[in-house]
Formats: sequence, C-alpha cells, structure tokens
Amino acid sequence: MNKTQLLNLIKRKRSFLCVGLDTDIRKIPEFLLENDDPIFEFNRHIIDATLPFVISYKPNLAFYEAMGSKGLVSLEKTMNYINNLSEEVFTIADAKRGDIGNSASYYARAFFELMNFDAVTVSPYMGYDSLQPFLAYKDKWAIALALTSNTGSSDFQLLPIKEERNNTEEFAEKFLFEAVLEKASLWENSNRLMFVVGATQGELFKKVRRAAPESFLLVPGVGAQGGSLEQVASLGMTDECGLIVNASRSIIFASGGKDFSEKAAQEAYSTQKEMEQLLINKGIIS
Amino acid sequence: MNKTQLLNLIKRKRSFLCVGLDTDIRKIPEFLLENDDPIFEFNRHIIDATLPFVISYKPNLAFYEAMGSKGLVSLEKTMNYINNLSEEVFTIADAKRGDIGNSASYYARAFFELMNFDAVTVSPYMGYDSLQPFLAYKDKWAIALALTSNTGSSDFQLLPIKEERNNTEEFAEKFLFEAVLEKASLWENSNRLMFVVGATQGELFKKVRRAAPESFLLVPGVGAQGGSLEQVASLGMTDECGLIVNASRSIIFASGGKDFSEKAAQEAYSTQKEMEQLLINKGIIS
Repeated sequence: MNKTQLLNLIKRKRSFLCVGLDTDIRKIPEFLLENDDPIFEFNRHIIDATLPFVISYKPNLAFYEAMGSKGLVSLEKTMNYINNLSEEVFTIADAKRGDIGNSASYYARAFFELMNFDAVTVSPYMGYDSLQPFLAYKDKWAIALALTSNTGSSDFQLLPIKEERNNTEEFAEKFLFEAVLEKASLWENSNRLMFVVGATQGELFKKVRRAAPESFLLVPGVGAQGGSLEQVASLGMTDECGLIVNASRSIIFASGGKDFSEKAAQEAYSTQKEMEQLLINKGIIS
Repeated sequence: MNKTQLLNLIKRKRSFLCVGLDTDIRKIPEFLLENDDPIFEFNRHIIDATLPFVISYKPNLAFYEAMGSKGLVSLEKTMNYINNLSEEVFTIADAKRGDIGNSASYYARAFFELMNFDAVTVSPYMGYDSLQPFLAYKDKWAIALALTSNTGSSDFQLLPIKEERNNTEEFAEKFLFEAVLEKASLWENSNRLMFVVGATQGELFKKVRRAAPESFLLVPGVGAQGGSLEQVASLGMTDECGLIVNASRSIIFASGGKDFSEKAAQEAYSTQKEMEQLLINKGIIS
C-alpha cells in the first residue's frame, strides 16, 4: 500500500485505528479452545467485528512464535484471511526485527512476499544496512522503533547525544531517539519509513515532530497502557493525519466471554468516533 | 547451560567455535533439494561433521522464517536433533528480538521452553524491560547486541554520549555501545547476559573490554566478513576465555557439492586448531 492509498483509507474509514492482534492463547475465550486453530478463529471473529472501524491490523509475532510452527500457521491463515477481505486494510507485522544484509533480506521476504504484510516494525540499533532491505520494497513500509512506550525506553532512547555542529565546539542537545529520527529520515527510500512512538511519551512528542515533521507514526500505548488519544492527536497529528494509533488488549480482550467480538466492535467503534472528531477538527475530513 | 558448564565445554573441546546455521535454501547443495526437508537434512549433516570441533550452534532465524511455517518445522527438527546428541552443546537462537513485557516473555518462552535454546540474541534499544524476561530464566542466556560487525553499526552504536560525571560540568567520553555495555552489566541477572561484538571492530574491542571486562562475548564476523581470529583473541580474550566466536558461511558453504559436510568439517577443524593454540597461549588449557 502506498501513501496515497493509506491516506484515502484513513479518509474513507474516518479512522486511524490499528487493532493489535496480540492473540494470547491464555487470554482468548475458553470456548474457542475446542477449535482446531483457536488463534485463527479468534482473529477471524475480531477482524469481522472490527473491520468497519479500523484501517489496520497488527499481529504481534511473539504470540504466534510462542506456539511454534503451529503458531506460524495461524498467522499465515490470518494474513490470508485479511488479504482476501473485500476491502483493503494496512497490515503490520509487529516483529521488531533488526538484522543485516542477507538476514534482513530474508526477514523482508518472509513478511512482505510470503505473508504479504504492508509493513514490518524494525529495531534501528544496527543502523542503515539493517533497514535498507525493508525499504527497498516499493509500496511496502518499514516502521523503525524510535521512542517506545515502556519504562525501559529511557535507558538508551533518552541518552543525550553529543553532536558537533559545523566543527565548532558547540554541541546540539538531543536524545538518541531524535538522532534516530533525523538520521533515518535522510536514508534512501525514507519515504517508505514510519516510526514507532509510544502514546505515553507526552511532551516528548513535540521533539519527535521537530525531528520528523511529516513522517507517519505508529503509536502504541493508547488504551491498556494509559496513553491519551487526544493528547497524541494534539501533539502528533499532521495535516495529512500522520498517525496510526494502535490498541490491542483494550479491544481484543474487552470481554473474555461469548460476546468477545461484539465487545471488541463496541470498543473499536467508540475509538473510531473519537478519531473521526479529531480528523474533522483538523480539517482532514468534513 | 550455566557458566561453569560452558567453561568446561570450552576446555573439553579445546575450542570456542560456534557454527552459524544460516541455512539459506538458495545456497545448499542442489542434490539435497530432493529431500522432504532439505534445510533439516543440510543441518543434520553439518552438525554431524563439525560436532568434534565446536561448542555451539547458532541458527539464524531469518533463514527459517523466510520459509514460512515449514521453515519453523525445520528449525524445530534441528533443535530436537541437537538436544538429543550424545554430548551437550551451547545453542543460540540468533533472533535479535527486542520487545517488552508480555511479548518479550512470549519470545523467551518460544526459544527457551518450546525449542530449548540456551541463549537468544536480543536488541537492547528498548531498554531494561526488553531484556528482563530473557534474563529471568535460570541457566539460560540473553545476548545483547552491543557493537555489531556491519557498516551501519557506526550510525547509532558509535554516537558519542554526553554523560555528566558526579554532577560536574565534566563529561565522560563514550559511545552508545559503551553505555549499553555498562548499563546492561548492572541489571538484575546480568550474570546471564552476554554481548554481541563484531570481529571487524579492531581497536574498539579495547573499549568493549573496559566496559565489560568479564562478560562473555559472541563474536561474529570472522571468516566471510573478514575479521581476524588472532586479533579478536588478543584484544578480547579473558582468563576464562570469555569468547564464543562464530563462523557461518565460511564453514557451512565451504563446498556446494556432495562433499559439503566433509569440507565444513575441514574448515571447522582448522579453526579449532587455531583456537586450541590461543587457549594454550592464554594458559586456559595445557
């Protein structure tokens, strides 16, 4: 999916909601465990119920890999199901991969070619050549971790970087995550690069937007992790939207009973309504 | 495997060689493609041939994931094969995972419990809580990326960090990778933490050893990538060894013909001989 298609999708659905398919076998409703493939069954119902309100689905690879090769089959079936829906959605493999050369190319092949994801999350720690194999795909996206929503994000992402300005003794004041945003934005094909920025980061969102004014941001941390959608929009929304906001547990595990998909739809619907208003306020839709 | 067992393994095998099972379906000998599971067949032969000379095997997840769920089956079979060998080896899942909370726990479960790996490589970018779920396992290891062997390693790992010393205006001069080494070495259960340091990094190895004097280092980049074993040993070896040096392509693809396992054994043998001498020189074995 290219940028124009993504922007049209946001306008058409009046939403920038991504639902995280963090399908934890220990948390899905018990009655589903009778199925041959409970993970896929759960996903299928969640997708059918929430599709009117969302632009994107984001399976978190950890939950599938924890089931071994069987889990990968569930993921393949889920992606097959999404790719055969009557309408297009933006699919994100939340894999946080980060490797180089051949290995990165093989990861890119796995997610973009085998499973037809639109985007993959990647860790920037290894630098340029760890992202390049992903960015090489036309109409696909790499989403680099920049400023994450967890407490450990301060360990390294908030380390102050000493950067010489024009060979003077004057130093720029910036954090590692700003260096990541600025540097990566200059890389080849960075028009296919998004960044992960946690919804819990508050005022630091301003620095994100200074370093990457136009980039799309994938924002987790709204919902169960306590970030505020309104604050994220006020600090991070661009004239084109520029945001994909993810909620996982607060939607998919809204109920643990027979009504799990119905409750998930209700949660997604109320979030979409909030988003619609934010898009109207910004003049992106009318 | 705990540290004492690992040290005994090194002494017994007179080697600190890890063979990377970067089993690329496009590079394995053509005659193997007739098998139901050519990836596993290749691995099995490589393992049988090289076992006398190595202490560790390191499957690179990218090559298995690129084959979809079928690739994961090949990996599971490979791990099953290794875990049933008559002697113990140290197994590393080269997965470079990095996620938090629940997700990280699920990755840890996948690698440590489902597949019984001894160690997993992880990216440190997300900080403390992205490593903790791995470090929580007794007799298992997390191996954090510190200073990698690729050209992009300079993009962020070599950024200078500005760190106040004792609230004075004096700043410590250090690179991001040094901050990673120092900080991570202070975390809970860091006695189960190793670091990845590329063999191509030359003099920077001294800084690594200043920041993490005793830690075990997993060192890729010898062989196909051009790093020198002798230099790595002279700059990085501790009194206990403290090194696991990996070679992948130079061993497993030493020949593309019927004699692939024989040639792999020859390569592994000659590397082990070099290592034996280095261990003798250091007084670790006699």
